[in-house]
Amino acid sequence: MASFTFRRQLTIEWGHCDPAGIVFNPRFFEFFDTSTWLLFEAALGVKAQDLASAYDIVGIALVDARANFLKPAKFGDVVELASRISEFRRSSFDVEHRLSVNGALAVEGSESRVWAVRDKTDPDKITTAAIPPEVIARFG
Amino acid sequence: MASFTFRRQLTIEWGHCDPAGIVFNPRFFEFFDTSTWLLFEAALGVKAQDLASAYDIVGIALVDARANFLKPAKFGDVVELASRISEFRRSSFDVEHRLSVNGALAVEGSESRVWAVRDKTDPDKITTAAIPPEVIARFG
Amino acid sequence: MASFTFRRQLTIEWGHCDPAGIVFNPRFFEFFDTSTWLLFEAALGVKAQDLASAYDIVGIALVDARANFLKPAKFGDVVELASRISEFRRSSFDVEHRLSVNGALAVEGSESRVWAVRDKTDPDKITTAAIPPEVIARFG
Amino acid sequence: MASFTFRRQLTIEWGHCDPAGIVFNPRFFEFFDTSTWLLFEAALGVKAQDLASAYDIVGIALVDARANFLKPAKFGDVVELASRISEFRRSSFDVEHRLSVNGALAVEGSESRVWAVRDKTDPDKITTAAIPPEVIARFG
Repeated sequence: MASFTFRRQLTIEWGHCDPAGIVFNPRFFEFFDTSTWLLFEAALGVKAQDLASAYDIVGIALVDARANFLKPAKFGDVVELASRISEFRRSSFDVEHRLSVNGALAVEGSESRVWAVRDKTDPDKITTAAIPPEVIARFG
Repeated sequence: MASFTFRRQLTIEWGHCDPAGIVFNPRFFEFFDTSTWLLFEAALGVKAQDLASAYDIVGIALVDARANFLKPAKFGDVVELASRISEFRRSSFDVEHRLSVNGALAVEGSESRVWAVRDKTDPDKITTAAIPPEVIARFG
Repeated sequence: MASFTFRRQLTIEWGHCDPAGIVFNPRFFEFFDTSTWLLFEAALGVKAQDLASAYDIVGIALVDARANFLKPAKFGDVVELASRISEFRRSSFDVEHRLSVNGALAVEGSESRVWAVRDKTDPDKITTAAIPPEVIARFG
Repeated sequence: MASFTFRRQLTIEWGHCDPAGIVFNPRFFEFFDTSTWLLFEAALGVKAQDLASAYDIVGIALVDARANFLKPAKFGDVVELASRISEFRRSSFDVEHRLSVNGALAVEGSESRVWAVRDKTDPDKITTAAIPPEVIARFG
């Protein structure tokens, strides 16, 4: 599927790095999370902070995250992060993140998320719902 | 004032440290924040997560934070953090944090916080209220 | 394999949590990283910060990390994290992390790491080496 | 002194925020740290990661950090951060950070840093040195 891809550049900061001088792995999961929000914002034309109210959802809750670290990124590196939906299912979807340093793939990440809503019979409970076709269409 | 002091030990983690091999400064403010919660929990006998409902407040909102870095702390260091209220005012108070490494003072921190409540006439607005005398007494 | 398991308790802090009131996912990868260091420290009887010099390695470099989020953890939750080596290969190994809240499994994590050393012919290059049998034996 | 000011915009991310839905205070100190690096990079025309080697220093080590929180910043807010040197002394200097949300000052921060070098007689020791006049001149 030639799906909509959100790309951004970021510069690795001093505080992203550990005593080995390379990005501490949890930071990559922060980068992924932010890019997923921005991917939805760009595809749907709705500000990230308005996503929940616009679609009457609790959020796009993370159920699985993974990263494969191929090359390190270090302080001052300008990295490119490209993110896209690799698969939509009924009420869940996968996001693929590819982070490159100087054009070479450095980290491959993936997230699985669900379209999370309040249970109609018990508002304290969170459940999943079918992703609206018009949402899926925007990532086409 | 010989006020109630909350002490805890923590071990500096790999991920707390930067490429210089020492704790990245924002981490100390995390340590302070957590110790302030634990100080209130210990003094008041109320779980940190129940503090807001127990006292009908929004929280103990931070208005000022400061740290003076005397000596670095590095990966594996066992540090002691001692925290106490240095002053109570009508609706605000100061917390003093002293972090030691091997018995030597390494970081001196302070926070100013307010007793934050919802405005009675406009619940969307946050304002401050007088700190109950029985709360102050517990730190005595 | 009934391998050596490192267990620790930690309390979820205010700063670990996001606007949904639950732990922000990158924090779990921080917890995993720290537990892996502590697992090696406990199994080998060598302080985490002395591991590299004790075994003449650069470190135990992360090549893959994954987490499956089954239940949320929230501010004040006391969680147990149990970590063990699930498999040793020639120069790499897998760590399995199981985080429970109130006795129920909340997050399942795994890391793949390599025994990283400086290349003998080019000290600027990092390569992998066979994990010493006496190291593997300690996790028995 | 009408000193050189470095300005950048950033958007508050989900992971910057705490359960109150506002930026968790240590994140502001991360923002300040990064802006100080970028301020030097812009003023001196030297990449942040090359600063130490370009000036034969260990770094610009933090000795004091402070923030005054006037208004909260929340998920999705586009903030402007303006940073400048407010004072140079012989071997130390102060950085002033002003973070605005929608044009209103939200956080006022300051850092004191020293020009840190290796001791010539004992390279394991860090000491301070006079800041070169040509460095000071670039912030004019």
